[in-house]
Amino acid sequence: MEGLAQGVLAGDRRALARAITLVESSRADDGGEAAVLLEAVMPATGGAVRVGITGAPGVGKSTFLEALGSRLVERGVSVAVLAVDPSSSLSGGSILGDKTRMGELARAPRAFIRPTPSGPTQGGVARGTRDAVLLCEAAGFEVVAVETVGVGQSEVAVAAMVDCFVLLLAPGGGDELQGIKRGVMELADLVVVTKADGDLAGAARHAAADYAHALGLLRPRSAAWAPRVQLCSAVTGEGVADVWAAVEEHRRAMVEAGELDRLRAAQAKDALWADVHDRLGAALRSDRAVAAAASEVERSVVSGELAPSAGAARILAAFRGGDVARPGA
Amino acid sequence: MEGLAQGVLAGDRRALARAITLVESSRADDGGEAAVLLEAVMPATGGAVRVGITGAPGVGKSTFLEALGSRLVERGVSVAVLAVDPSSSLSGGSILGDKTRMGELARAPRAFIRPTPSGPTQGGVARGTRDAVLLCEAAGFEVVAVETVGVGQSEVAVAAMVDCFVLLLAPGGGDELQGIKRGVMELADLVVVTKADGDLAGAARHAAADYAHALGLLRPRSAAWAPRVQLCSAVTGEGVADVWAAVEEHRRAMVEAGELDRLRAAQAKDALWADVHDRLGAALRSDRAVAAAASEVERSVVSGELAPSAGAARILAAFRGGDVARPGA
Repeated sequence: MEGLAQGVLAGDRRALARAITLVESSRADDGGEAAVLLEAVMPATGGAVRVGITGAPGVGKSTFLEALGSRLVERGVSVAVLAVDPSSSLSGGSILGDKTRMGELARAPRAFIRPTPSGPTQGGVARGTRDAVLLCEAAGFEVVAVETVGVGQSEVAVAAMVDCFVLLLAPGGGDELQGIKRGVMELADLVVVTKADGDLAGAARHAAADYAHALGLLRPRSAAWAPRVQLCSAVTGEGVADVWAAVEEHRRAMVEAGELDRLRAAQAKDALWADVHDRLGAALRSDRAVAAAASEVERSVVSGELAPSAGAARILAAFRGGDVARPGA
Repeated sequence: MEGLAQGVLAGDRRALARAITLVESSRADDGGEAAVLLEAVMPATGGAVRVGITGAPGVGKSTFLEALGSRLVERGVSVAVLAVDPSSSLSGGSILGDKTRMGELARAPRAFIRPTPSGPTQGGVARGTRDAVLLCEAAGFEVVAVETVGVGQSEVAVAAMVDCFVLLLAPGGGDELQGIKRGVMELADLVVVTKADGDLAGAARHAAADYAHALGLLRPRSAAWAPRVQLCSAVTGEGVADVWAAVEEHRRAMVEAGELDRLRAAQAKDALWADVHDRLGAALRSDRAVAAAASEVERSVVSGELAPSAGAARILAAFRGGDVARPGA
């Protein structure tokens, strides 16, 4: 672990990749090595701009990230991209597609691109990705972008681990707006209308106005920042630099108001307890005494012989190894 | 417990009220008596029509329940109404208001009205109310209506414990529809447009058509039943009997398709595991070793010295009484 931590801290890519694999694969019962690794690198974490990028499939996330990332590395800024893809555990294909599509960025020496496989639970994804962000920071990356497909709960998890959350939307105006979950809009610090070029330029401007109106109806997440809408074309490159300027402006506003520290502290505390509950659930699922009790309890509950609450008390007693109230048994 | 169970089974109101208080107040660590009570009455449960009633404040839930309940008791059907009110723990007032508004029904010998106070967690409410439904069935009630204000997650919990879920909506058409959470609409087996009388009759018909259209866009919960919209006026009484006829028709369709048994079995199984997780969370929160470890772990996590995942591993180790990986400590 010592050597791996040194490799990460020295910015070694292969060490970073191995370290991320380690924290992603760590489970409730084998988190020891991951904890040792993280403890060693923690002093070197916290320095990156943490950006979340979400949007529906087809909105152009990879193209946008390629355009943005390439510009940043050209300016000498090192960029790590962590791609959370809920579909990858099924297809295995889309992540590879992303990496291929981000080919230019993937070859840049200042860039690091890494898919984060979806674990069995949402909590597992969140934990692994959060740890991966810390490892990227320890490896010296100045920008860590976490990309997620906005189709599940993953965008909520990602918004809870970044400083600035960017929602990409396609041109299309009112109709498009209906399809977006209101909750995702509420998480956004920046809304970026993609594909604002060629035939779609007019529609994109229209959509931007609609989204700006919708944003105005929502309560901002922070008093220091009013979410805004930007236009951009990853193809022509127009607006991409402006999106990054807005991310930096958001950061300045948050830092000046003391909100960035508060946000990160609150995120860390929430992540701690979410992770505790996640590990607790995993411990329950893998518990032998629970497994032994569960099928009989389930059968009795389903048949109506046992109240669910009474069945739950039995399973909990099995888990905790205590005496169990089994009247009449 | 034996005497209390006998009282419930004999249909004694005071025994039923005491029994409900017992199951509502039962916590992870003192569920023994509640479990004994439930075990004794379980063979007598399952016989009622379980109906959930939800709707925004002001839509007329109490008036509707009074009108429906009174008609049922006149026909010789015994009715229990359990009112879940998330606001009652704050105000204490609205439940009393409900009971006062349901004055006629409250005085009927075949009716039983009972507020269910909101517990500290949603899970607690769900468990207590679910147990209360079972107790009402054991006491011989033929209809158990669970009423909830549709403003939180309580409607999801209630939908998960009833055979038929009825959503009350006020006239108002399209605008009104925007304010309803799509998720609540998806839970409904019946949508009832209230206040379909006098000046609002036209608006109510209009709204009903809009809601029917919206329902048509959603995937039905069961292949055996297509959710429908009904009009009703609790004031004139028009449509109230039709709503009940629809509830009975829904029941017949579900029974014939074998779906009622499947639904109840799935609900009981879900309730079992939700309750297990709820109790586990309660056990964690009240654990002394966790409390002792938590403040130091939280401080280190918030300050960025400790990764949330590593902190979670420490808290879990404290909870489970095992050895904890504390590198460098």
